[in-house]
Amino acid sequence: MPKVPTPERILTAALDLFNESGEPNITTNRIADELDISPGNLHYHFRTKQILIDALFSRFEQRMLELLSSEVSSTTEIEDAWLFLHLIFEAIAAHRFIYRDLNELCARSRDFQRRFRAILKLSMTTANDLLDGLERAGSLVASVPQREALVRNIVLVSSYWIAFDQVLEPRKEPEPDRAAWQVMSMVSPFLQGTAREQFDLLTETYRSA
Amino acid sequence: MPKVPTPERILTAALDLFNESGEPNITTNRIADELDISPGNLHYHFRTKQILIDALFSRFEQRMLELLSSEVSSTTEIEDAWLFLHLIFEAIAAHRFIYRDLNELCARSRDFQRRFRAILKLSMTTANDLLDGLERAGSLVASVPQREALVRNIVLVSSYWIAFDQVLEPRKEPEPDRAAWQVMSMVSPFLQGTAREQFDLLTETYRSA
Repeated sequence: MPKVPTPERILTAALDLFNESGEPNITTNRIADELDISPGNLHYHFRTKQILIDALFSRFEQRMLELLSSEVSSTTEIEDAWLFLHLIFEAIAAHRFIYRDLNELCARSRDFQRRFRAILKLSMTTANDLLDGLERAGSLVASVPQREALVRNIVLVSSYWIAFDQVLEPRKEPEPDRAAWQVMSMVSPFLQGTAREQFDLLTETYRSA
Repeated sequence: MPKVPTPERILTAALDLFNESGEPNITTNRIADELDISPGNLHYHFRTKQILIDALFSRFEQRMLELLSSEVSSTTEIEDAWLFLHLIFEAIAAHRFIYRDLNELCARSRDFQRRFRAILKLSMTTANDLLDGLERAGSLVASVPQREALVRNIVLVSSYWIAFDQVLEPRKEPEPDRAAWQVMSMVSPFLQGTAREQFDLLTETYRSA
């Protein structure tokens, strides 16, 4: 088996430790310790902790931008929308340290803030497009103010479910499935006909799992 | 005019600075500077920054527990429910530093975490009671899973609207009114009869303000 390059090993260990204990509580020395390498070696690959954070964020950003602009984001099938949310929430769970200290990370780096905001804005556009698609397919009826609040609530719950869950149940693993259900259930009262039936069926499956 | 006691002045200055820049970015020396007192004087009243945070949190906690157990929390009038949310969200806005770094503050102090979780649990009970009241009054119809998701979403949006707004629009003042509208609009599709009409009327007033 080929040896994993050191920068890659550092990124993996940093991501695990940040996710587990929160970025503010992990020093670069702690990461070097975990890998049994010298602080100097880590410093050679990542000069500061912020550079390490930026590298992890760039990977997350790429994954999110890919997901948010993928074809499934324009589906009119309830089951596909549910799956789409699930994929997004798995990406979020895998990088949950970003959401744990989001406001502090944004305050610390203008570049981070600008790029994270771009993800939020694209999320709002995607949510809006999804609702548009459902409306055009005759699967959804909602007034303009309801749509406006719904889009904002979808992106808010999508962004903060993991921080909320960890305050309520700190020792539990994230549950992307429950989060997807929470978001879908905000949309569900506006669903019509077979879309509504599809949602009820999926709720049953989710709740009996 | 009687002179404001030093501990009170320290608490006010700390609250303002924490809210403005985030608690992690404000040292006790910075607070002493702001008040033109010596670090030793501040230290005499609050031995550590954590003690200062705890004192501010205790005030917030008291205000929240009072609000959450007040009579208005068992209203069946949509207008009163809206007002109730507004009062809660004003208390949150006045102590927004708590919500900015919530997960980190919880990780740092077991006592803080236990007490904050108690506020969240009481919020969920209150939300549930409010929905119960509306249901009994014939103003709301929702299935058990819908109710479950709704309660969780209400408390999630209520807890994180301010952090979300500040990531999206960092230079704007918090908008408790918009947050109350966002929460009410999650409930609105389940409203029936005059309760629904009341909601539509309030939405119009809110949107033309």
